[in-house]
Amino acid sequence: MGVNPKEWAKRIIEGDIRAASRLMRDIDDRMPWVSEVLKELYPHTGRAYVIGVTGSPGVGKSTLVDVLIEIFRGKKLEIGVVVIDPTSPFTGGAILGDRIRMQRHSTDSGVFIRSLATRGSMGGLSRSTSDILRVMDAMGKDIILLETVGVGQDEVDVVNIAHTSMIVMIPGLGDDIQAIKAGILEIGDIFVINKCEREGAERMEREIMMMLELGARREDGWTPKIVKTEAIKRKGVKELVEVIEEHRSFQEDPERKKMFLQKALRIELITHLKDQITTRILDAIGHEEGLSRAVDEIISGRIDLYSKSEEILNRLMC
Amino acid sequence: MGVNPKEWAKRIIEGDIRAASRLMRDIDDRMPWVSEVLKELYPHTGRAYVIGVTGSPGVGKSTLVDVLIEIFRGKKLEIGVVVIDPTSPFTGGAILGDRIRMQRHSTDSGVFIRSLATRGSMGGLSRSTSDILRVMDAMGKDIILLETVGVGQDEVDVVNIAHTSMIVMIPGLGDDIQAIKAGILEIGDIFVINKCEREGAERMEREIMMMLELGARREDGWTPKIVKTEAIKRKGVKELVEVIEEHRSFQEDPERKKMFLQKALRIELITHLKDQITTRILDAIGHEEGLSRAVDEIISGRIDLYSKSEEILNRLMC
Repeated sequence: MGVNPKEWAKRIIEGDIRAASRLMRDIDDRMPWVSEVLKELYPHTGRAYVIGVTGSPGVGKSTLVDVLIEIFRGKKLEIGVVVIDPTSPFTGGAILGDRIRMQRHSTDSGVFIRSLATRGSMGGLSRSTSDILRVMDAMGKDIILLETVGVGQDEVDVVNIAHTSMIVMIPGLGDDIQAIKAGILEIGDIFVINKCEREGAERMEREIMMMLELGARREDGWTPKIVKTEAIKRKGVKELVEVIEEHRSFQEDPERKKMFLQKALRIELITHLKDQITTRILDAIGHEEGLSRAVDEIISGRIDLYSKSEEILNRLMC
Repeated sequence: MGVNPKEWAKRIIEGDIRAASRLMRDIDDRMPWVSEVLKELYPHTGRAYVIGVTGSPGVGKSTLVDVLIEIFRGKKLEIGVVVIDPTSPFTGGAILGDRIRMQRHSTDSGVFIRSLATRGSMGGLSRSTSDILRVMDAMGKDIILLETVGVGQDEVDVVNIAHTSMIVMIPGLGDDIQAIKAGILEIGDIFVINKCEREGAERMEREIMMMLELGARREDGWTPKIVKTEAIKRKGVKELVEVIEEHRSFQEDPERKKMFLQKALRIELITHLKDQITTRILDAIGHEEGLSRAVDEIISGRIDLYSKSEEILNRLMC
């Protein structure tokens, strides 16, 4: 780089979008220089409020995020948006690339939108997410909306680093819905039934309510809320914002704040460690070329997979 | 353990279910003794045919898998089933725990069913999956059905280690379906439109077909097939099996076989390395207790997240 990390951090803290974009790209590309800048930014973070928006494809997360941006901007808040896109293993391109609706905010300097694709088999959805959140936080974003697809482990991690987690669902997804609900009930602070004009919305609401009542009490004492929306017509979104603010006040309690911080930092530390180590493994193997060579050795039968893995590890670790 | 790895491997190769179950549990618990047994099993693997069954919750994957088991058993094939369940971060229990329909096969000694839950933030869906597949392979299973939820990176990895990848969908999931399709088109060998009695099945079929025509040609030359099923009534499943067999014959080509093996082993090697390293990180930090101590240090402000992460790494690596 040749750039002073202190200088770079200063520009980001002052809200320089180009400096922030450059850093985020380099975080994504695992460039070694970024950690010095992240260290400089660290004392300037911890102020942004992160709202997770999770749900299956097709439930209307992007539309909801779009309307939320509009409402928060009306309150003069600075907004960051991080969209985590699953990536195609063949092309390396993002699946949910263009988000046409959200693009209308791209000319608003108070809104910073960033898509994170996960690439290749060394990736993981949560890879650089927390670092990107730290950068937006340091830039002075008041609210960061974190949009993710699915119900895998990566989404669970994302839910754990968000201050408020919204699970977005739609009526009419079939009979297995009971099974889904049983799992996500524990990770959602707010349940959004979007496209609530559809048949089955009331039944869905009753079912979630029933399962919440039957389920174990949450450790933190919060009672999850259910909100029905029709985001495309802006219906119910103001109510949703009120519920988000209610949860935010709840989280302000010092004891709860500490609990949350411990949980979130734990995940962030582990994620960062895994990420750093992954980079070092790739260095040790010799990236693509070395990886192909190792695989060819295994195919030829000269060594088995497990012994090869051990060999690489022993070279890497004390 | 006190058990000879060679002895243990021998019992598994002879089909001893208790020996295999014990090993799988210990793989899941990351017990160190397992790698010696896996090394012994390795030369006895590479024969099983792995079929990936991926799709959102609610599309009827389990029902489909259940009917597939029935058909393959009718052909006197030995079957393994691996179900990957996303886990609740609070209770550690599997979300989609009981699969009532599939349980009717549990008394059939030709069917071995194993649920893999992902636990805690150090996990990853693909964690021990490939090792479990190796064990079933060594046991002599002819076909292994690998069921996963979602469209995240972990599922993409799973798709890459399956010989044939089925993507299961249902009609009527809303307007974002275009976006989903654009991504999964590249990873599916077979597209199953389940619950095809629903409105919109024909339209869905036409849309997928159109996108397949518009999309880039696949590197391996396979033209993905579309099959409509109503698994709960066994409709279309025989046709599905025929398409699976067609894809299997296609994959038999020596050049393609080699390409596939290179791709799959690459992922398996990396997954195994990451898994081993994760275990060592936890050892180095001092597991739960040490992790809490590290987080408290960060919260107190004595050290920032990134410097702490560096400190741990330097202790661990040469």
